Amino acid sequence: MDATPAFRYRRQVQFAETDMAGIVHFSVHFRYMEEAEHALWRAAGLVIATPGETTGWPRVAAAFDYKAPLRFGDEFDVEVRIGVVTRRTLQYIFRIHAGSRTIGRGTVTTAFVSKPHGQPMKALDLPRETVARLQAAVEAAART
Amino acid sequence: MDATPAFRYRRQVQFAETDMAGIVHFSVHFRYMEEAEHALWRAAGLVIATPGETTGWPRVAAAFDYKAPLRFGDEFDVEVRIGVVTRRTLQYIFRIHAGSRTIGRGTVTTAFVSKPHGQPMKALDLPRETVARLQAAVEAAART
Amino acid sequence: MDATPAFRYRRQVQFAETDMAGIVHFSVHFRYMEEAEHALWRAAGLVIATPGETTGWPRVAAAFDYKAPLRFGDEFDVEVRIGVVTRRTLQYIFRIHAGSRTIGRGTVTTAFVSKPHGQPMKALDLPRETVARLQAAVEAAART
Amino acid sequence: MDATPAFRYRRQVQFAETDMAGIVHFSVHFRYMEEAEHALWRAAGLVIATPGETTGWPRVAAAFDYKAPLRFGDEFDVEVRIGVVTRRTLQYIFRIHAGSRTIGRGTVTTAFVSKPHGQPMKALDLPRETVARLQAAVEAAART
Repeated sequence: MDATPAFRYRRQVQFAETDMAGIVHFSVHFRYMEEAEHALWRAAGLVIATPGETTGWPRVAAAFDYKAPLRFGDEFDVEVRIGVVTRRTLQYIFRIHAGSRTIGRGTVTTAFVSKPHGQPMKALDLPRETVARLQAAVEAAART
Repeated sequence: MDATPAFRYRRQVQFAETDMAGIVHFSVHFRYMEEAEHALWRAAGLVIATPGETTGWPRVAAAFDYKAPLRFGDEFDVEVRIGVVTRRTLQYIFRIHAGSRTIGRGTVTTAFVSKPHGQPMKALDLPRETVARLQAAVEAAART
Repeated sequence: MDATPAFRYRRQVQFAETDMAGIVHFSVHFRYMEEAEHALWRAAGLVIATPGETTGWPRVAAAFDYKAPLRFGDEFDVEVRIGVVTRRTLQYIFRIHAGSRTIGRGTVTTAFVSKPHGQPMKALDLPRETVARLQAAVEAAART
Repeated sequence: MDATPAFRYRRQVQFAETDMAGIVHFSVHFRYMEEAEHALWRAAGLVIATPGETTGWPRVAAAFDYKAPLRFGDEFDVEVRIGVVTRRTLQYIFRIHAGSRTIGRGTVTTAFVSKPHGQPMKALDLPRETVARLQAAVEAAART
C-alpha cells in the first residue's frame, strides 16, 4: 500500500494533545487524520466546509491502529491516500510516521449529504469532479 | 462573594482532559465554566443554542485564576453566579472547588448578537426576559 | 450482540463537542467510548490510571461506525461490553444510542504495558484479576 | 504595547476547533496562546516539558478578550511578548490577528514548581537563565 502515491501533511505534537500517560491521547489521531484530509482538499483547490451551507461530508466510519506512541514535540507526517470510492462513500487511508518510526495506520470513510436547515441529513451521490480533483492532488503531491 | 446564591454543576475529571503534567489542561477549565453556564440555562428552561439560528451568545471575555490542580477522577463543583449585567453584556462568575479545596475562580462575559447567514455579527441589547430567568434559576438553585 | 449484558454510561452532549456542521465532531465519539470504559472501571472498583505509575493501558486499535449524528443537548447512553480477550489484549465493544436512535457502534482494544521512566513501553500479559472484575461489573450492571 | 518586539507564531484554524456557532470555540484561543508560548521556547532552544520530570510550569492565571471571531481555514498570527516578571511568576502577553483584523488579546501567567512524584506542587523561584533566554528569543524574532 505504501508504495502508491501519497499526499503528505507535516505536524508537530502540541502539549494540550498529550494526556497524563505522557503520550498523545488516542482520540487526537483522528483529528490528525482529518487535518491531513483538509490539507489535501486545500491542495486540490477545494474547501470542505463553508458556513451556512446545506451540504456536508459527514463521516460514516473511522478507525486507527496504534503502533507506537507520539510524545510532546514529536514531528510527524500524515500520509493520505484515496482508498475505496463507491457511488456514495469516499475512503481515505492514512499512515502516520515520525521519521522511520510508524505511529499507526487508519482510515476515514465519508459520505456526501444534503442537510436543509432543520431537516435530517440525506445521502447524495458523491460529486465526481470533487473526487477526481482529490485524486489528482494526491498524485501531484506524490510527484514533488 | 461566595456568600451570595449560586447554581451548582457537578462534574468528574475525564482522562482525556489531563495533560502530560498529570493535571487537567488549563484550557479545559473554560469548558467546565461553559458546561456549568449551560446547565444553568437548562435549569432556567432555556436553550443557549439551536441549529441554524440567526442569533447567538458569543464570548467577549474569559478569565480564570488557578489555585490548585485538578487530576483524573477528581469530583468537583462549578458554582455559577450572575455578575455584572449591562445593556449588552452578561457576566458569569465561577468558582470551582473539589470538596473544601478551591481549584480556582473565573469569569466569562457574553454578548448577544444577530448573525444573519453570511453576514458579520452585530451586537444587540440583551433579551431582558432571558437574563431575569437566569437570575431566578440561580436563586432557585441556591434555595435547594 | 446487543442481547448480551452491557454496562451503561449516560451523558449529554456539550456545546464544545460540536463543530461548524452543527453535530458532534467524529473524534469526540472516541472520548465518549473511553469515558464509558472508565465508568466501568470505577463500577468495578478499579482505577485505570494513577499519577507516576509505571504501567498503563495504551490503546492498540479503535474504530467507530457512525449511523446518526449527535447534536448539542442530546442525551445518550454508551453501552459497554467486553469483546475478545487475548493473553495481551482486551477489546471493548460499544454501542451509542439516544433513546431508540442508534448513533453508532465502535470498539477499542487495549494492551497492558510496563513503562519505566525514560524507557519504551513493553507489553505484558493482562492482569487476570482486572479482566475478571471488569467482566463481573458488566454482568452486575446488566442485572440492575 | 504592540510597538514592542514580539515573537510570531502562525497557524491555521482546523475544523475540529470550530463549534456549532460556526466559529472557533472560545476555549481554543487558550490553546493557541500556549502553542505560541511553546514555539517561543523552541526558538529559545528550550523545552518546556519532558516526560517524568519533577519540575513544571503550571498556569496561575489566563485571560482573553475576544474582538472578532475566527472561522475554519482562517490563517492567523499569535504575537507573544514577555509581560510582568516577578520572582515567582512569568506573564506572557498575546495578540491574535488575522491579517489586519484583531481577533483578541490575552495573557497567561505561569509559575515554576517542583512536583516530586506523589507530592503536592511547591512554588520555586523562576530560573533566571530561562527567563533571559525567552526574552532574548522575543527580541531576536522581532529583528527578523
